[in-house]
Amino acid sequence: MAPSAQSLPTSVSDEKYANVKWEELGFGFCRTDNMYVAKCKHGESFQEGKIVPYADIQISPCSAVLNYGQGLYEGLKAYRTEDGRIVLFRPDQNALRLQSGANRLCMPYPTVDQFVSAVKQVVLANKKWIPPPGRGTLYIRPILFGSGPILGSLPVPEYTFTVFACPVGRYHKDNAGLNLKIEDKFRRAFPSGTGGVKSITNYSPVWITLAEAKAKGFSDVLFLDAATGKNVEELFASNVFIVKVEERVVPVEDLLDAEEVFCTGTAAIVTTIASVTFKEKKTEFKTGDKTLAAKLFATLTDIHMGRVEDKKGWIVELTDATKPGLKL
Amino acid sequence: MAPSAQSLPTSVSDEKYANVKWEELGFGFCRTDNMYVAKCKHGESFQEGKIVPYADIQISPCSAVLNYGQGLYEGLKAYRTEDGRIVLFRPDQNALRLQSGANRLCMPYPTVDQFVSAVKQVVLANKKWIPPPGRGTLYIRPILFGSGPILGSLPVPEYTFTVFACPVGRYHKDNAGLNLKIEDKFRRAFPSGTGGVKSITNYSPVWITLAEAKAKGFSDVLFLDAATGKNVEELFASNVFIVKVEERVVPVEDLLDAEEVFCTGTAAIVTTIASVTFKEKKTEFKTGDKTLAAKLFATLTDIHMGRVEDKKGWIVELTDATKPGLKL
Repeated sequence: MAPSAQSLPTSVSDEKYANVKWEELGFGFCRTDNMYVAKCKHGESFQEGKIVPYADIQISPCSAVLNYGQGLYEGLKAYRTEDGRIVLFRPDQNALRLQSGANRLCMPYPTVDQFVSAVKQVVLANKKWIPPPGRGTLYIRPILFGSGPILGSLPVPEYTFTVFACPVGRYHKDNAGLNLKIEDKFRRAFPSGTGGVKSITNYSPVWITLAEAKAKGFSDVLFLDAATGKNVEELFASNVFIVKVEERVVPVEDLLDAEEVFCTGTAAIVTTIASVTFKEKKTEFKTGDKTLAAKLFATLTDIHMGRVEDKKGWIVELTDATKPGLKL
Repeated sequence: MAPSAQSLPTSVSDEKYANVKWEELGFGFCRTDNMYVAKCKHGESFQEGKIVPYADIQISPCSAVLNYGQGLYEGLKAYRTEDGRIVLFRPDQNALRLQSGANRLCMPYPTVDQFVSAVKQVVLANKKWIPPPGRGTLYIRPILFGSGPILGSLPVPEYTFTVFACPVGRYHKDNAGLNLKIEDKFRRAFPSGTGGVKSITNYSPVWITLAEAKAKGFSDVLFLDAATGKNVEELFASNVFIVKVEERVVPVEDLLDAEEVFCTGTAAIVTTIASVTFKEKKTEFKTGDKTLAAKLFATLTDIHMGRVEDKKGWIVELTDATKPGLKL
């Protein structure tokens, strides 16, 4: 790591909160104090990494990620509950998704325990950046990528697993529900591609359509499947749900006939979709307090905030026993 | 750039050749002396960059390329002719392809003149790494990527254009012609995707199939189209040609009926394909000195090496007027 203006990790007990205007918090990059870094050579396994001051990453110009897109990301959140605890929501599921993606992109990966431990360490090392209850969350971004140089043939000599975090507010700003453009030209994923894993290669190729849709005032895009162009897939960074439709292939017509539609994601949480526009024609759906989406959002947030009991074992609480100082 | 052991750019006239065993040169990464770096803020244009000592790149952990795969690469070669000149082959075409890809991935890009100038500067600043005539070439790798931090919504605040170079030998080691596996599960590109540009997102997603094929002894894979799974597309890093077939959609059956097949690419040059294996069945093609591929290889190499006249204006010669010192 390069030297940083911040020469030592901030003590988590220095002060309770960082100097952030919490009421103005959006969903964007914000530099925090510390990050986690672990490296792994080809043919070896990831060992315990370490917390270092947040700083630029140094990688080879010829690295696998810069030249061939070998990278994955994850996203999860730390919540400050109303009774003062700090909790995560099902972090083991993010670890398993990262492992699945690493297999798809030919990379070694951290164990579930290493992953969850790294996430906990990053949260505690940036504790004062966790927004007050109800004002936002600490978004945690683990990335795994080929950092060693490669030209021509495999293997990649080195991999890096890094975790950093940013305080965030709402991802979608449209409180009255999202207005989507159904994309009828660009596709996002295709059979046997990388649509099933959180590969970085799934994102930049569809920025062009997101930018076009946003320029026209839409909240987000809804992609159709590449094989037929007829079935509903997902939004840019969230899943789509149609109330009363089971998990199955969903033709656009079924979506247009729906009463209520919403999307879910770590960033999006549960967000009502107010309309979709397909080939210039706008179709509207139910919005407001009476929607299933509103109830789901309230229940999920109640679980995150510790207001209702977690009966599923989804909440992982961070305690002094997970303090980085004790583990490093 | 981080400090390097090499504190100053090597003078191109210090000595004629770097300490390389040219006869053992393969196609892989080799650290050279200098690289070119230019940066550009969102909303601005690329200005002239500079030659710096070859070193790791420093980028934000939250950069667009590491998290969302926003990156492109190019590949071209510098040749040392038998009469002692140093030449490039159609570098303007690489510049134009990079520009097309940058539009697709929502990035600003260098002008054609900036691109070609950067390539020339990198070649001259690494002159002693250009192999002797007939022993290999200097492979030049321009990369353009989103280096600024982004979480959630566009724009990306900063972009980086870097050019580095490595001496290389042959890309395919199979002198008797390539033995290909026709991939019948994984697809590479799909309509409206990024198959038409040199996006980094096109590579790591298909490493899994290349690794599988190489493990079984194949030279390379041949992809079929994602839409139908019936038509021939390309190899991992080169185009495919069937002798006597015009530029059109090519069903696998036409390929299997062919007399001679070869592939082309900056790295592959012109390489005979000896066989393809489709669903376990191997089909062989014509190989040896009498193939069209052998003649094309000889003619193209004669042009690169200055043994025959370039009547098309394809060769760009580097002279003292393109010496970095005079331009910076």
